[in-house]
Amino acid sequence: MDKFWNEYPVIKDDLEEVITIMRKNVKCKEKLVENAILELINSGGKLLRPAFLIIAARFGNFNKEELYPLAAVIEMLHMATLVHDDIIDDSTLRRGIETIQAKHGKNYAVYIGDFLFCRCFKILSEHSSLKSINVDSNVMSRICMGEIEQFSSKYNQQVSVNKYLKRISSKTAELFSLSFYSGAVESGCSDKLCRDLSKIGHNIGMAFQIIDDILDYTGDELLVGKSLGNDIKQGIYTLPLIYVLKNENSRLSSILAKNAFCEQDLNDIIKIVKDFGGIEKSRALAERYTKRAFNIINTLPNGESKTILLKVTEDLLVRFY
Amino acid sequence: MDKFWNEYPVIKDDLEEVITIMRKNVKCKEKLVENAILELINSGGKLLRPAFLIIAARFGNFNKEELYPLAAVIEMLHMATLVHDDIIDDSTLRRGIETIQAKHGKNYAVYIGDFLFCRCFKILSEHSSLKSINVDSNVMSRICMGEIEQFSSKYNQQVSVNKYLKRISSKTAELFSLSFYSGAVESGCSDKLCRDLSKIGHNIGMAFQIIDDILDYTGDELLVGKSLGNDIKQGIYTLPLIYVLKNENSRLSSILAKNAFCEQDLNDIIKIVKDFGGIEKSRALAERYTKRAFNIINTLPNGESKTILLKVTEDLLVRFY
Repeated sequence: MDKFWNEYPVIKDDLEEVITIMRKNVKCKEKLVENAILELINSGGKLLRPAFLIIAARFGNFNKEELYPLAAVIEMLHMATLVHDDIIDDSTLRRGIETIQAKHGKNYAVYIGDFLFCRCFKILSEHSSLKSINVDSNVMSRICMGEIEQFSSKYNQQVSVNKYLKRISSKTAELFSLSFYSGAVESGCSDKLCRDLSKIGHNIGMAFQIIDDILDYTGDELLVGKSLGNDIKQGIYTLPLIYVLKNENSRLSSILAKNAFCEQDLNDIIKIVKDFGGIEKSRALAERYTKRAFNIINTLPNGESKTILLKVTEDLLVRFY
Repeated sequence: MDKFWNEYPVIKDDLEEVITIMRKNVKCKEKLVENAILELINSGGKLLRPAFLIIAARFGNFNKEELYPLAAVIEMLHMATLVHDDIIDDSTLRRGIETIQAKHGKNYAVYIGDFLFCRCFKILSEHSSLKSINVDSNVMSRICMGEIEQFSSKYNQQVSVNKYLKRISSKTAELFSLSFYSGAVESGCSDKLCRDLSKIGHNIGMAFQIIDDILDYTGDELLVGKSLGNDIKQGIYTLPLIYVLKNENSRLSSILAKNAFCEQDLNDIIKIVKDFGGIEKSRALAERYTKRAFNIINTLPNGESKTILLKVTEDLLVRFY
C-alpha cells in the first residue's frame, strides 16, 4: 500500500479490503497470469480511483459489502488499460517494476488485459446494476477512443491544446469522474450531489494527467517510477510541448521533424520546452482545474468526507505548484 | 453474407438484420477504427455463432427485437477475440483479407479489440440481464484462459490429447455453447431444452475446431482464407500432430526440436502427420463429436427449427468426412 494513505487510516483500511477482493478475483488456473496481475496489485499504485469511489460513497449511505467490489472493479479496469497501454507505449517500467509486456511479452499482455476486463464485468454483474454496467462500458469505450486518438496523433506537430484536453478527458478524467459517480450513485446520493462529485472527479483527473505529463519533462526517474522523456520518445506530444509549439519555435519544430530522437535530441527538446515556459503554462492550467475542483468541494455538505476529500486533493495536486 | 446461408432464407434474413445492428454499434469518432471493424464485418465470415443463437431461440418464443442485439453481441465478442488472436498468431490473412494487425499494426489491433468488448457489454446492458452478463463474462474469461494455455504450450511436444481437448473446449466450444444457450434462455425455453441446446453447441464447437485444425494440414489456401501450416509455424501443435507424436515418431520429434521451421520443415511435418494417420484419427474424433450433436438434436421437439439445425450441422461438418 502506498504511504500516501498513511494519514487517512479510515480510507487505508477500506483500501486493504479492496486489495483483498482484487486478489480473490484474479485467481485463475494459468498461474503466470495470476502472478503477473498479483505483482501489479502489489507494486503499490496509489489506488486513487477506488479511494475516490469510497470517499464519494461516504457522502451517502456507505455500505461496505456493496461498495468494496465496485472499488475493486474500478482499479481493475484501470489496471487492464495500463497493461494494454504499456504494449502501445513499449514501456519497460511501471511503478518502478518491469511491465507485463516487457517481462512476459506483448502477447501475454494482450490476454492479461482482456482477462482483467472479463473479470470486471463478472463482478459488476454480481454487485451492480444494468444501468451501472451501461455507464461503465461507455466510459471504457471513450477511454479506448482517447488512447486511439493519442496513438493516431503521434509525431503530429499540429495537435492543438483543445485536442489534447479532449484526449486527456477521455483517457484519464472520465475514469476519475466515473469513480466519484459510481460511489455516489451506489450509496444513494442525490442527483445534484452525484453530478457535483462527478465534476470534481473530472477536474481532479484533468489536473492529475497534466501533472503526470509535466513529470515526463521534470520528474525524477526513481521517484516517478518510469523513464524520463518517454512520451517524447514515443512521439506523444503533451501539453508542455504543445504550448511551446504554438508559439512557432522553429528549433523545436526542426528537431521534432526527425520523427525519431536520440538522447541528445530528447535533452534538447526538454530544455527548449523548459526555457520557453511550457512547464509553467502547463502547471498554471493544472492549477486552474485544481481550483475548479476545490470550488465544488467547498459547496459539498460538511463532515468527515469533505475534510478527507479536501486534504487528499491538496496532497495529490497542490504540492506540485 | 457467406453463400452458406443461401439455402436458409429465414436465417439469412435474420442475419442481415444482425449485420445492420453490428454496423450501427461500431460507429465511433475514430474513423480508422470504425472502418477497420466494418471491413471485418463485410469480409463475409459465416456468422455461425449468431446463426446458432437465432436457431436456438426459434425453439422458444422468438422475439426479433430482443434476440437480434444478442446475436450481434455474440458475433462482436467473437470478432474481438479474432482481432486479439491475430496479434498473438502474427496472422496476415483472415477470411482472405489482410488482418487488422497486419494492416494497421498491433497497437491499433489491441484497442480495436478492446473497443469491441466495450460495445458488447454496452449492448448487453441495454438488452439483456445481469445473469446473462455474468454467464457471458465467465465464458469470455475461459476463452482467454484457453488462448493463454495455447500460447504457453507453444513448441511443447508433451501436450496431451486431453489438454488439447480442454483447450479447444475453452477457446472455441464455449462460445458455440453460449450461442445456443443465450438464444434458448432469452426465448424462454425450458431448463432441459436450454441444457440440451447448450450441449449441442459444445459438440458442434469441438468438431468445428478439430476440422479447422485439420485444415491447417490439408486445406486449400484460397478456400480456407489463411495460409497453410500457419499453426505449426507458430509452434501451435494441434490434434493431427499430437496424435502422431503420441506414437513416438522420432523423425517428427527431431524436426520439432528445432523450434523454428523453414518451408522444407513445414512440408516434412505435414507429410509425416499425413503418412502416420494424424488426419484420419483427428477426423474420426471430429466425427464422434458430430454424432453426439446429432444424437441430441434428434431428441429435440420436431418442427422447422429442428429441420434447419439438422441441415446446418450436416452442411457445416459432415462434408469433411
